[in-house]
Amino acid sequence: MSIITLLTDFGYKDNFVGVVKGVLLGINPRIHAVDLCHEVEPQNITAAAFALKTAYKYFPKDTIHLVIIDPSVGSARLPILVKTKEHYFIGPDNGVLSLALEQEEIEGIVYLDNYEFHLRPVSNTFHARDIFAPVAAHLTKGISYQLFGKGIKSYKKIKLPKPKVGRKYIKGEVIYIDRFGDLVTNISQDLQEKITRSRISIKNKSIRGVKSSYAQVKQDSLLAIWGSSGFLEIAVNSGSAKNKLNVDIGDQVDIITNA
Amino acid sequence: MSIITLLTDFGYKDNFVGVVKGVLLGINPRIHAVDLCHEVEPQNITAAAFALKTAYKYFPKDTIHLVIIDPSVGSARLPILVKTKEHYFIGPDNGVLSLALEQEEIEGIVYLDNYEFHLRPVSNTFHARDIFAPVAAHLTKGISYQLFGKGIKSYKKIKLPKPKVGRKYIKGEVIYIDRFGDLVTNISQDLQEKITRSRISIKNKSIRGVKSSYAQVKQDSLLAIWGSSGFLEIAVNSGSAKNKLNVDIGDQVDIITNA
Amino acid sequence: MSIITLLTDFGYKDNFVGVVKGVLLGINPRIHAVDLCHEVEPQNITAAAFALKTAYKYFPKDTIHLVIIDPSVGSARLPILVKTKEHYFIGPDNGVLSLALEQEEIEGIVYLDNYEFHLRPVSNTFHARDIFAPVAAHLTKGISYQLFGKGIKSYKKIKLPKPKVGRKYIKGEVIYIDRFGDLVTNISQDLQEKITRSRISIKNKSIRGVKSSYAQVKQDSLLAIWGSSGFLEIAVNSGSAKNKLNVDIGDQVDIITNA
Repeated sequence: MSIITLLTDFGYKDNFVGVVKGVLLGINPRIHAVDLCHEVEPQNITAAAFALKTAYKYFPKDTIHLVIIDPSVGSARLPILVKTKEHYFIGPDNGVLSLALEQEEIEGIVYLDNYEFHLRPVSNTFHARDIFAPVAAHLTKGISYQLFGKGIKSYKKIKLPKPKVGRKYIKGEVIYIDRFGDLVTNISQDLQEKITRSRISIKNKSIRGVKSSYAQVKQDSLLAIWGSSGFLEIAVNSGSAKNKLNVDIGDQVDIITNA
Repeated sequence: MSIITLLTDFGYKDNFVGVVKGVLLGINPRIHAVDLCHEVEPQNITAAAFALKTAYKYFPKDTIHLVIIDPSVGSARLPILVKTKEHYFIGPDNGVLSLALEQEEIEGIVYLDNYEFHLRPVSNTFHARDIFAPVAAHLTKGISYQLFGKGIKSYKKIKLPKPKVGRKYIKGEVIYIDRFGDLVTNISQDLQEKITRSRISIKNKSIRGVKSSYAQVKQDSLLAIWGSSGFLEIAVNSGSAKNKLNVDIGDQVDIITNA
Repeated sequence: MSIITLLTDFGYKDNFVGVVKGVLLGINPRIHAVDLCHEVEPQNITAAAFALKTAYKYFPKDTIHLVIIDPSVGSARLPILVKTKEHYFIGPDNGVLSLALEQEEIEGIVYLDNYEFHLRPVSNTFHARDIFAPVAAHLTKGISYQLFGKGIKSYKKIKLPKPKVGRKYIKGEVIYIDRFGDLVTNISQDLQEKITRSRISIKNKSIRGVKSSYAQVKQDSLLAIWGSSGFLEIAVNSGSAKNKLNVDIGDQVDIITNA
């Protein structure tokens, strides 16, 4: 069986994800489609790129990652397939693949212009069904990735905002907020040594040091902790830091480091 | 492996979908259950029928489509199985299967009254678990569909509202609104020629002509576009037409055609 | 293929469930992961225990049930694996497994302290990814359950509240509310004989007797019915009892029995 992961902003209200799975199975009934996430905020390319970056590498070699966050469907952006040493990535060339790809060794990039592998007629608005899923399904049948279109040299890149690191301070920001209200910052674990005994400020609240479990502070108290994706997170024990602090993505996090 | 699609209004808050999958796998561990959609508006038979109609045909031959939108569970409506030339459909006979079935060549309809294939005791309120799923699972084990109950001649039909088509106008309505706020109308693509250069009115807003991608209008502007299910849709580039126009299902769409 | 069910409070907004499936498939690509439920109210151990209790037994023998509702991740609670005669259960030892386990014949309990089967380094906050999923996946590869850590004798138990049963009355309470607004009480079907012709009171409304289908009362009317999990439920035909009565979990249900 071939594994294809699905990462979209289609949500669960409609049959869009089901239709994509139908197309996959209609072409190859032995495909194992795995939902990575479908509740990415509609058309938020950065959130989707972050979700892909922090998930894809757990899947086995040769997994195909189908990523459909595509606000410009039907216009200029190209549909592409990227073959890396370990994985395949298929999606629109709008940056959504780029945070994952910068961690990978790229072997080839193809612009999906071989119509032979698309559903006909291709609709205006649902290229996941008509282009991306059929290509992914045909790929599982042993067709070489180069046959899906003409080779191209580069892909669109987006970047996560970088923190400013001074001698005695770090200025970061919130880049993601999860279901539990935990605030993921852009301060990554390679800054760990500077931060262990620091003072962290966010929205006029101050936090001392970094904990290693939620239970190290009292219920409903703020803490900082290294999160599972390798970034510093601000959380509340048994509660939501987002609600407690009324924080949004982009809000600032200031650290006075242990200089 | 046998593919069974699941279309319900069970949502994701409870374990109902998980229990149905348990029953399927408990009878045949080699079943591949695929979620078509579980967030159909509770007890909205028309929305579910539309979701089935626009999705089922992408799945391979002999797929079993299990459709459980069943506001009258436990009362008069019959549980049925319909064999068509390409697919199987199982669900309550309340019209939910009918928009798909009108596109299919029907080979037989069975009223599921053979209790041998039900879980015992059958509950008052969860026939998905106790009748529909066990029948679907046993069907994958090679039991002929006629053995699940007595043959019947017809099934309950519902219809989508039809647009009124005059010499110089079309009066349609909104029949579905998707997650992105796109408004699906009942004006189907066989009217395409009449509409290309028309004026479309909805909620006192006027739209000129039909576009082929969202990006052909400015961000936050209204447009009309042929949608992926073959109906005219009203949308907003990078936004929600539902929110912009405050539209509900049943609201009117008027077209002055290019007479 | 080995079946692993997933019951979490991770929701669908993030990639957490997808990452767990990636870890499972990365270790054994032939695992069939089945979603039991991911929208358990965050950190509500009782609701999750109830969802597990009413679902797990439909799955085939030797299914592995992975249950991650873990508000104390990273602190004192132990990660455990419980082998029963028919199933495996893996999760934190906080009571979430206990309502299912009290229905099973237990063969052994293991504290998951053999780091050889964990991802390294284990994060502070995502033991589902780093401990529970890797253990479940290795278990499908034929490794004996005793090898995952040292045997222990007991596990943490929680109990559903019991109703008070007098000679002429029963005092129960609402223990669960489902998506449709049906109110599941703690009055179980072994009290059926006492209740058939009783008067049931909830929030100053009175209901006479127990029906066998929603349609036995008028639309929007209250009824009592034996629910699919074996408990008395208060419901509204084609509506939500939760909304009609403004009820919460823990609210009282009084029955004057047919003494």
